[in-house]
Amino acid sequence: MVITPEALLKHWQAHRGLTRRMIDAFPEKDLFNFTIGGMRPFSELAMEFIGMAAPTLKGVVSREWATDDKSPKPTTKAELLEKWDAATEEINRLWPQIPSGRFQETDTAFGQWTMPVHDLLLYVIDNEVHHRGQGYVYLRALGIEPPPFYDRY
Amino acid sequence: MVITPEALLKHWQAHRGLTRRMIDAFPEKDLFNFTIGGMRPFSELAMEFIGMAAPTLKGVVSREWATDDKSPKPTTKAELLEKWDAATEEINRLWPQIPSGRFQETDTAFGQWTMPVHDLLLYVIDNEVHHRGQGYVYLRALGIEPPPFYDRY
Repeated sequence: MVITPEALLKHWQAHRGLTRRMIDAFPEKDLFNFTIGGMRPFSELAMEFIGMAAPTLKGVVSREWATDDKSPKPTTKAELLEKWDAATEEINRLWPQIPSGRFQETDTAFGQWTMPVHDLLLYVIDNEVHHRGQGYVYLRALGIEPPPFYDRY
Repeated sequence: MVITPEALLKHWQAHRGLTRRMIDAFPEKDLFNFTIGGMRPFSELAMEFIGMAAPTLKGVVSREWATDDKSPKPTTKAELLEKWDAATEEINRLWPQIPSGRFQETDTAFGQWTMPVHDLLLYVIDNEVHHRGQGYVYLRALGIEPPPFYDRY
């Protein structure tokens, strides 16, 4: 065994804690507008993370894949952080409901991505780490010191 | 169980395959010189990945932590890719030698970082994903389409 489900949840939430501090480190206007090379502003990347996290976990738990979020996009940092914190609670609530043996099953997430469930969850985490790294360049280019990558809580 | 050692090795090497294609996507001069916001050029990030990967795995396998690489830094893309490919082979050679139960042990890597072995290995992978995301911004800023993040082999 490499890692227990409990340790992977802790690992993920510690990454998400760092991402939350990244969101908070952006000046409000730059969070929604600053880009480099035609890429998305950090607010849109953060909304992608939120759009993937709990919905993927719901599919892992229930074996039903639905994208049913019709709520309006946040337009302020406070609204974005509120959505972030709601997702944090939802993840903590859903995680213990993952059926035994489910990590080793292969499933098709949202009718599109077929892989073992452990790879689906690692994809969601990796995607956040990947795009958050993009946010580090945005902050540096803005002359802002980002929160340390190794600091997870 | 979340993931087997064999699946984690496959996951890591697939990430490393993407990083290799990122290195290759940079024009030679930009690989060694292009930066944004005072950050390191992508060649130095890639050398950090190489400097962490097999040396960490050696420590995981042997419980001895040594940083003994005295070889000169690569100055061309070809030399960097050669070092990359040597690390790929070394990782494949070392991985099956990880002692049973070792992932759950806590150790202090290189006299500095104390954590469970699974977190040490995830840190090495996450650090690569994180800084590789930085490389995506560099390529986009240079007007170069990076290899797709979801494409792993």
